[in-house]
Amino acid sequence: MKIFVFAELSGESRSALKKRLPKEAEITFNSEISKGEIKEALKSAEILIGNPPADLLKDFPSGLKFWQLENVGFEQYKDIKFKGTVANVGDMSAIPCAETIVSGILGFYRGVHSMVRNQIEKRWVGEEISNDLQILGEKKVIILGSGAIGEHIKKILTAFGCEVQMTAKSDPDADIHSFEDLLKQLPETDLVINTLPGNLENYVSADFFEAVKEGSLYASIGRGNTTDEAALIKTLKNGKLAGAVLDVTEKEPLPKGNKLWEMENVILTQHTGAGHKDRDRDKVEKFASNIDKFLKKKKIEDEVKLSDGY
Amino acid sequence: MKIFVFAELSGESRSALKKRLPKEAEITFNSEISKGEIKEALKSAEILIGNPPADLLKDFPSGLKFWQLENVGFEQYKDIKFKGTVANVGDMSAIPCAETIVSGILGFYRGVHSMVRNQIEKRWVGEEISNDLQILGEKKVIILGSGAIGEHIKKILTAFGCEVQMTAKSDPDADIHSFEDLLKQLPETDLVINTLPGNLENYVSADFFEAVKEGSLYASIGRGNTTDEAALIKTLKNGKLAGAVLDVTEKEPLPKGNKLWEMENVILTQHTGAGHKDRDRDKVEKFASNIDKFLKKKKIEDEVKLSDGY
Repeated sequence: MKIFVFAELSGESRSALKKRLPKEAEITFNSEISKGEIKEALKSAEILIGNPPADLLKDFPSGLKFWQLENVGFEQYKDIKFKGTVANVGDMSAIPCAETIVSGILGFYRGVHSMVRNQIEKRWVGEEISNDLQILGEKKVIILGSGAIGEHIKKILTAFGCEVQMTAKSDPDADIHSFEDLLKQLPETDLVINTLPGNLENYVSADFFEAVKEGSLYASIGRGNTTDEAALIKTLKNGKLAGAVLDVTEKEPLPKGNKLWEMENVILTQHTGAGHKDRDRDKVEKFASNIDKFLKKKKIEDEVKLSDGY
Repeated sequence: MKIFVFAELSGESRSALKKRLPKEAEITFNSEISKGEIKEALKSAEILIGNPPADLLKDFPSGLKFWQLENVGFEQYKDIKFKGTVANVGDMSAIPCAETIVSGILGFYRGVHSMVRNQIEKRWVGEEISNDLQILGEKKVIILGSGAIGEHIKKILTAFGCEVQMTAKSDPDADIHSFEDLLKQLPETDLVINTLPGNLENYVSADFFEAVKEGSLYASIGRGNTTDEAALIKTLKNGKLAGAVLDVTEKEPLPKGNKLWEMENVILTQHTGAGHKDRDRDKVEKFASNIDKFLKKKKIEDEVKLSDGY
């Protein structure tokens, strides 16, 4: 079985991955061959790990049976025709993403993000600002989307003491099932956290911002295109929103001229939500366990085929 | 019954407190009398709310039965002789204090505090720094002290996924009961959070910092004098500690020349841990409920006295 690892991995992670794959596998790492050899490696692969540029996949390797992507989204491959099994990294990034957005939210309420500005100027302002701070645990929260990120955020915020509702069109465990019901709840909600996927373009719309509670906070760890950014900026400027915590923006990197840069009540985490120092370790684990699952399934199918021959 | 409220409260909070106190009480608010009348008000009070300067209490009002302090510490009154009942505000500030220290810790691991510096310079560094971030939920934590602040921190960190141990000399629910046992655990501990009271001067000593794990984080929401600050700064400078989150320092305001101001891996929250916009609301609640408890207890004692007369 030929496995081509296009994903860039450190030497240590390549060794770790090798140990987790079947002994009989012939493994080729992109980082260990020349550029000219990539096409050939792709053509002969039965298992592919990673995200090669879409144009390299035009004549899709006909022997390929399993394709493991190295992140969650796959918009760039929408024109690729492939009939085998595809896996993404699923909820691998749910925990760091949840932590980053809670960090920004808590930093906003407890004033910790603004303390950095005071530290740079060596300004001691403790007593002056104390009475402006807020308690996260007293907030009413709605999380948009009920995926793995939202679930982890809910678990954390519940421990803080928050009252948390989740939205999802068809998940029966969610509390809010339509945009209309969401709009009705907004005037009583202190904090909305967006965890929505990219197919819900501008779901957080001008109508949404029209309905939010005076002095509330908006946070987003979903896709940048799910928020109407012009409407968000307008609502920050007119003071109805007390602030925003944004891991994502419509354009990334955020253009120098964008108003969000200069708003001190906006915390920009620059799409670092999924990042952490052991990401390679987690990728290797996810790659290996997905391939393991695929091979077990394939083995059962092969055995079924054999028995068919009787 | 005469009640003297020395504590400064807004007009709204004074009304709220009045409503919660017995109808027959004669209430005098410090903010509604002249300076010359304070001595007289103190002398005739049966219940005192607040922290008057210690020298005003030299000849302690002999009719005073219950004294409600307006914060936790009472070091300034150590020479005052008073035989009645004294109450402090107990764990009123546990929740905001726990939130502030978790905010700093989470900000450190997820890079959110340093993002403020990037935002000021309009630097988009998301991809560069992603691999330096860490996950709080994977950390092994020790909380020094098992009071209300520590308990709330533990609840929150457990939801994140952390493994949490608590120290306390005599609390059977704590995990670590001596400084020697603490030193043994430190080399395996990623994060230590100090919630200790002021009677444990320099408990977090040079020996403590000698034993900490390479790359670990130190956080303190206890009293400033419980940390040997010179040893802390030394351990930050030699790089053994990855950083520190400090709500308290030995001297406050922190002197301009203190090295902590300039360390980018140190987050200073400037003793704002207890602060929040509804602190007066919480004080009124605490004052009223403590006075209520005192009066009920007193009523039982009066009834007992009456029955003694039979």
